Amino acid sequence: MTVHWARGGPDLPVALDRGAGPLRIQLQDQLRAAIRDRRLGAGERLPSTRHLAELLGVSRGTVVDVYEQLLAEGYVESAVGSGTRVATMPSGGPARQPPGGAATSAAPRPVEADFEYGIPDLGSVPLTAWSWAVAEATRTMPTAALGDGDPAGCRHLREVVTAYHRRVRSGCAVAEDAVVVSGFRQGLAFVLATLARHGIQRIALEDPGPREHDVIARRAGLSAVPVPVDDHGLDVDRLRRTGARAVLLTPAHQCPTGVALGPSRRRDLVAWADEVDGVILEDDYDAEFRYDRQPVGSLQGLNPARVIALGSVSKTLAPAIRLGWVLAPAPFVAGIVEEKRLSCRDAPGLDQEALALLMESGRFDRHLRRVREIYHARRDVLAAEAELAFGPGRLHGLAAGCHALLRLPDGTSERAVVTTAAIMGVRVNGLAHYRFAPAGAETEPCPPALVLGFGNVSDHQIRRGIRTLAQAVRQQTVPMIRPDVHRSNT
Amino acid sequence: MTVHWARGGPDLPVALDRGAGPLRIQLQDQLRAAIRDRRLGAGERLPSTRHLAELLGVSRGTVVDVYEQLLAEGYVESAVGSGTRVATMPSGGPARQPPGGAATSAAPRPVEADFEYGIPDLGSVPLTAWSWAVAEATRTMPTAALGDGDPAGCRHLREVVTAYHRRVRSGCAVAEDAVVVSGFRQGLAFVLATLARHGIQRIALEDPGPREHDVIARRAGLSAVPVPVDDHGLDVDRLRRTGARAVLLTPAHQCPTGVALGPSRRRDLVAWADEVDGVILEDDYDAEFRYDRQPVGSLQGLNPARVIALGSVSKTLAPAIRLGWVLAPAPFVAGIVEEKRLSCRDAPGLDQEALALLMESGRFDRHLRRVREIYHARRDVLAAEAELAFGPGRLHGLAAGCHALLRLPDGTSERAVVTTAAIMGVRVNGLAHYRFAPAGAETEPCPPALVLGFGNVSDHQIRRGIRTLAQAVRQQTVPMIRPDVHRSNT
Repeated sequence: MTVHWARGGPDLPVALDRGAGPLRIQLQDQLRAAIRDRRLGAGERLPSTRHLAELLGVSRGTVVDVYEQLLAEGYVESAVGSGTRVATMPSGGPARQPPGGAATSAAPRPVEADFEYGIPDLGSVPLTAWSWAVAEATRTMPTAALGDGDPAGCRHLREVVTAYHRRVRSGCAVAEDAVVVSGFRQGLAFVLATLARHGIQRIALEDPGPREHDVIARRAGLSAVPVPVDDHGLDVDRLRRTGARAVLLTPAHQCPTGVALGPSRRRDLVAWADEVDGVILEDDYDAEFRYDRQPVGSLQGLNPARVIALGSVSKTLAPAIRLGWVLAPAPFVAGIVEEKRLSCRDAPGLDQEALALLMESGRFDRHLRRVREIYHARRDVLAAEAELAFGPGRLHGLAAGCHALLRLPDGTSERAVVTTAAIMGVRVNGLAHYRFAPAGAETEPCPPALVLGFGNVSDHQIRRGIRTLAQAVRQQTVPMIRPDVHRSNT
Repeated sequence: MTVHWARGGPDLPVALDRGAGPLRIQLQDQLRAAIRDRRLGAGERLPSTRHLAELLGVSRGTVVDVYEQLLAEGYVESAVGSGTRVATMPSGGPARQPPGGAATSAAPRPVEADFEYGIPDLGSVPLTAWSWAVAEATRTMPTAALGDGDPAGCRHLREVVTAYHRRVRSGCAVAEDAVVVSGFRQGLAFVLATLARHGIQRIALEDPGPREHDVIARRAGLSAVPVPVDDHGLDVDRLRRTGARAVLLTPAHQCPTGVALGPSRRRDLVAWADEVDGVILEDDYDAEFRYDRQPVGSLQGLNPARVIALGSVSKTLAPAIRLGWVLAPAPFVAGIVEEKRLSCRDAPGLDQEALALLMESGRFDRHLRRVREIYHARRDVLAAEAELAFGPGRLHGLAAGCHALLRLPDGTSERAVVTTAAIMGVRVNGLAHYRFAPAGAETEPCPPALVLGFGNVSDHQIRRGIRTLAQAVRQQTVPMIRPDVHRSNT
């Protein structure tokens, strides 16, 4: 049975319900079911990701994710130049049955190295120190502080994090400028909603950049426009042309390319903000982990009236602690606090006091020094292994943070490498995974590359993982058909 | 100089900026400044709260709050029948300077008894047990659980809270139905946004009822309609007439009247939900503290397909712990999780595991038994004192929870009593504080009454506070002018 993928026509075997959970899961389940019960027959070509995304009114990234998942699970096959086709199915199951047999399993075999971006070394989380800090907080907190407090957050923590920001990040903020949040994402949502109420309608985002910030911006009522990133970070000239009055960026260590925003770009960016009466949202992550020299100060310190800095302990301590802060110019603070008050009242007061005590006691700094050494050593292992396996000059963005960018040989299909690696037990994302393509926008292609998070992998896993990746790249021996083959849909 | 409070005209000395923080604070600051620098002269009459609310496009409650604050601070004076007038100001300050001299001080003198609603006994928070639970969590949690986990929340906690809900609340939910949130308010925001995406446009709220739920509903894209509460709880016949397909209520112990939803009302409410293909949002607070008999089971257990139950530990443990849960029918769970994932990823994983361990270890139950006795004893002191001071039959809603309703003699000005009490050092809210008046709606008057939270007051404070309230009531000796005088603006 041939399925007619008519534009919105009745033959389309997919019906998404926007109220019924993630569209990605729905699409995946429905395609899987259609393949399982042969409504989509072996060898049948699936529509291009671009076309299906348009048909369904979802982002192209969603469709790409779904195709990659089905590829990893063996439901579909992919060959450069011939698109994605339904795999030949043995009766009763997909071509490559995932382990455990569950169709919802994420990986086809146990993950042997996980280069997932953004996970700190979970084995180094200072649990004893945290436990001490919570116990200390329960002993020392005034009884009244156990009730609903100031919705801006615990005063003590606001004092401690702004002191830390001044000392370590060359920032310029005091407790009154700070709002405690549950992490970067919550802080971003509150800030964007506040900007929207200040009449800002459009925000520029780095492309490639952190995932889903476009979704979060739209939920807050802003439109999101992409701005390219080059070897010096965000392209400020291109930012100027967007007409946006707000920009969100990762200046200390760009996510995912790993570049630091260059000195002249920093000055230019701050000048742009003054020109357009604009706001810079500084995602100040990874700033603590700079290996080649002292960290560059935060943009917030450069222009406190124009920069809103967002920080969290998700990467310095652990995601499971879930505390962060927003440092904002005075005109925005009350609005951010009101967003927070109406959304969730406050972050946990006991945890806030515990974090303040942890930072004040010196334990936080000691922990940072310790993990900085761990990451530095891991980075060196990664650099050596990558040079061995891929030759010199392929690994970029190593000056700071817990991830790097591995440039693949021209003509390599990034997506095919990612999929093959997954089958071989190595989890990694390609650069395309971080591309941000608003509906209708033409974005320039990126060279094929892999984003290697090395925060939570052992030296042994790095060695094994890099060798597997090299093997996966060698398997992509199909000659190049189009220069942007790594970005074409398959 | 007479200020013309022209309808939106340029003479209005108030300009609210919706982006610049709470409107209440802005209005308060501007009126205070206008009085301080004599733009509003002594004896000048302020517009009625209703009129000013219309002029400024804010809720009447906001204006009432501001007038009460200025009254408490001595900037304005109030007399029944003659409205609110600017007080005679000594040069350089308000008539009654608040202690410390700060114009932003909330109370005119130290609070000697605080009957604020909704605060549990902060002196009884089981801090040692919590500290134990966090330490235990740091010792026993798998390392991988320190990263970003399932956005529905820690599986262990979802199992424990649903088991608790089944056991203690006669609920009917399993871990898959549960989403961990940071507290009631965050859960409500996620649920309302999900309902809106399911096409529900209007939600009915109890009137009187918990504060600001109308604001939270509007933020989620729903309109809110009031439904009266009588001696049996929410009036289901009136609910039927609203055309709403969703309702939010406090069935175990109505906030603020203290009544429990009657048995026939419960059945009728559940039938209503089936009739309209609707959803009942059950704010299951105070259910643990029932003094006269076993707690009535949750509505969720009665009709799990129609009821979304929201619970938290803010009143059973402490607001500073900030964890709660949503138990929802399957069609809503994925949407609620997606709201949560995009808003804040998750609540703190360590705290979630700690709460699971606290509940599983029996420490949570032991704590509840202990505070139930404390509240029971406090309730008896309150009942005895109220009978002594006000005569029999004035205190209502004492069967459960941590607050009661004190009916004042007919013709008493509730607002004047609240203000006088504040000046005498007793903090309390009137029933009118919990009224919900959407723009243009005519709501029936409530009899004058005070809402007495007794969760966080000592026996001594109760005795002292009730005597002060009786004194404040006696001072309101002005004969009644209109039957609804307690609700007219002053």
